Amino acid sequence: MNAAGDVVALTQALIARPSVTPDDAGCQDLIADRLAAAGFRIERLDQGEVRNVWAEHGDGGDVLVFLGHTDVVPPGPRADWRSDPFEPTLRDGVLYGRGAADMKGSVAAFVVALEQFVAAHPQHPGTIALLLTSDEEGDAIDGVRYVAERFRREGRRIDFCITGEPSSKQRLGDLLRVGRRGTLTGSLVVHGIQGHVAYPEKARNPIHALAPALAELCARQWDDGYPEFPPTSFQVSNLTAGTGAGNVIPGRCELVCNFRYNPGWTAPALEAEVVAVLARHGLQYDLRWHRGGEPFLTGEGRLRVAARAALTELCGGSPEENTGGGTSDARFIAPLGAEVVELGPINASIHKVDEHIALAELERLPALYRAVAERLLLA
Amino acid sequence: MNAAGDVVALTQALIARPSVTPDDAGCQDLIADRLAAAGFRIERLDQGEVRNVWAEHGDGGDVLVFLGHTDVVPPGPRADWRSDPFEPTLRDGVLYGRGAADMKGSVAAFVVALEQFVAAHPQHPGTIALLLTSDEEGDAIDGVRYVAERFRREGRRIDFCITGEPSSKQRLGDLLRVGRRGTLTGSLVVHGIQGHVAYPEKARNPIHALAPALAELCARQWDDGYPEFPPTSFQVSNLTAGTGAGNVIPGRCELVCNFRYNPGWTAPALEAEVVAVLARHGLQYDLRWHRGGEPFLTGEGRLRVAARAALTELCGGSPEENTGGGTSDARFIAPLGAEVVELGPINASIHKVDEHIALAELERLPALYRAVAERLLLA
Ligand SMILES: [Zn+2]
Ligand SMILES: [Zn+2]
Repeated sequence: MNAAGDVVALTQALIARPSVTPDDAGCQDLIADRLAAAGFRIERLDQGEVRNVWAEHGDGGDVLVFLGHTDVVPPGPRADWRSDPFEPTLRDGVLYGRGAADMKGSVAAFVVALEQFVAAHPQHPGTIALLLTSDEEGDAIDGVRYVAERFRREGRRIDFCITGEPSSKQRLGDLLRVGRRGTLTGSLVVHGIQGHVAYPEKARNPIHALAPALAELCARQWDDGYPEFPPTSFQVSNLTAGTGAGNVIPGRCELVCNFRYNPGWTAPALEAEVVAVLARHGLQYDLRWHRGGEPFLTGEGRLRVAARAALTELCGGSPEENTGGGTSDARFIAPLGAEVVELGPINASIHKVDEHIALAELERLPALYRAVAERLLLA
Repeated sequence: MNAAGDVVALTQALIARPSVTPDDAGCQDLIADRLAAAGFRIERLDQGEVRNVWAEHGDGGDVLVFLGHTDVVPPGPRADWRSDPFEPTLRDGVLYGRGAADMKGSVAAFVVALEQFVAAHPQHPGTIALLLTSDEEGDAIDGVRYVAERFRREGRRIDFCITGEPSSKQRLGDLLRVGRRGTLTGSLVVHGIQGHVAYPEKARNPIHALAPALAELCARQWDDGYPEFPPTSFQVSNLTAGTGAGNVIPGRCELVCNFRYNPGWTAPALEAEVVAVLARHGLQYDLRWHRGGEPFLTGEGRLRVAARAALTELCGGSPEENTGGGTSDARFIAPLGAEVVELGPINASIHKVDEHIALAELERLPALYRAVAERLLLA
């Protein structure tokens, strides 16, 4: 089988394994067997019900790791898909299936690129590795977060990390993700006094109490952006009050909100701003915060230079470089001191029905990942 | 059995019938049999699954009707009650059970008062009647609304109506309800565009769109009241948005609100005000209205004079007369041209666990209702 057919076949084999998070469904075994056959040392780092695997080749020197996940988000009802989400299906040069773009295509490309790299450079300097988890789309606690903490404890170094998250917008390689905003989630309960709508003077409506504070938070422009970052964003994701009855003033109102913020803010600073608004409006409330990760930025350095050069040469143009989008496991690797970029296929169909990747994209990914590795480790 | 023991025993018999709306559970049969034995003509006015009964005595002249309901609201979990809600239980001079105050005590008192009235005045002028439904606490469509429409169609007159809804606050007879606010319910759906919180520029958050309009509606003082009416009140009873996931901007936000309004407003005028606010904030929405009844007021007249005099004489003071509180079936009788008042026991425990009525209250109700009837029909 040629290299192009190889990456397609491996992607199909991975899609056929219904690895809904945090289930790995045998994906990592398949990959570990191949890389072991190629001379990689395999280390299982399973934690709880989550499977993690580390495969490395070489010894010492700079450590470059490709980072991926074998789990996928649930496909939703089968009937909504044109073909079964776990039966990889080719139509008109496009491969359909859950995980095709996020991120079994990238993972397959990592494997092929690593095999090619060590075959071409059996005595390469430095260490090249693959880290996979089955818990990126789920709780993300026992996956890369756990592995990163363990590496920190054991004093193991990572210098460069490339994750295959689907970063591209219109064409493969048009965007290189060089950092991530921070994420902060707040869970607010506003307390009122339940009562009958006919006796408003005996009740205190928590929706009415919240309304002006909510309007203020929603209207606020938090900043105008930050170098290499988009503006900080505040979004209410859930809002619930009421018993269902139309004649009852509810006793509580619950709200969940999320900040995506640039390095102009910290989680504590944002939390203080929200608390100040709630206090100014005299709310009685409980508020819990979940700090999902501070922002990070991979500044100009060897990884960005190598990735940019490979993209410019192989993908027909220099990429946009930014820090938009959602979170990824890169947030756990960056604090180890690693340079981190995200580089993967077009993300238009991820987490949706009929998720897909074009064969023309998929077949070019191994060469792209291999080129970045060669520029970093062989230069 | 003396009259006092009689009303208590009948209330207990009614409570023991678990007539959760719209089930009558045999209450009306029990009452109809007693009133038929006392010389009343019985007319069944059942509609759908709802039971309605009309019992009358006398012929022509002024028509006075006592209006009540035999259905009760659900009791909720048995464990929340000190004694079974459908086993009438006496503790320390207080009768406990679902419906004790709303309104099986009043209904039992009506029956005893009617029996006493026709026994004392077998040749009374005018017509005295009882109208009961099993659908006051539920949809209220096939109950008194239906009977009133039928009376209108058949040209049947009602001059005076006394409903036994629990109107008293601190002591029996301290409040005479002489009208009701109108009620108007709005169901609003605000449309946005669902998306991921990391890509707010690709979504449109309906909560954020609604927030300033909601703040404006909640902050508004609709009026300063109206003669004999409290100020118009706007309350949001239910507010729902979100998928439950913390990282998804919802595609829609649903809100239910309710106006209780005085005769300074009409339903169309209030609807237009809300629509103007929504339009000014540029919302994309659907809005449905349910007009639950326009306000009505029983002005100074024979019924108020009679009721006030009876209360002053028998309950130790002249009552407060107002139009507060929730809706009742009186709203369907008033448009027939009847003078309508609401006069019943203390309402502190209605629709709650451990609903109750003091024996001292219950035992005085028959004399009170009989006194009003005598002042109206025998004067
Ligand atoms: Zn992913
Ligand atoms: Zn009632």
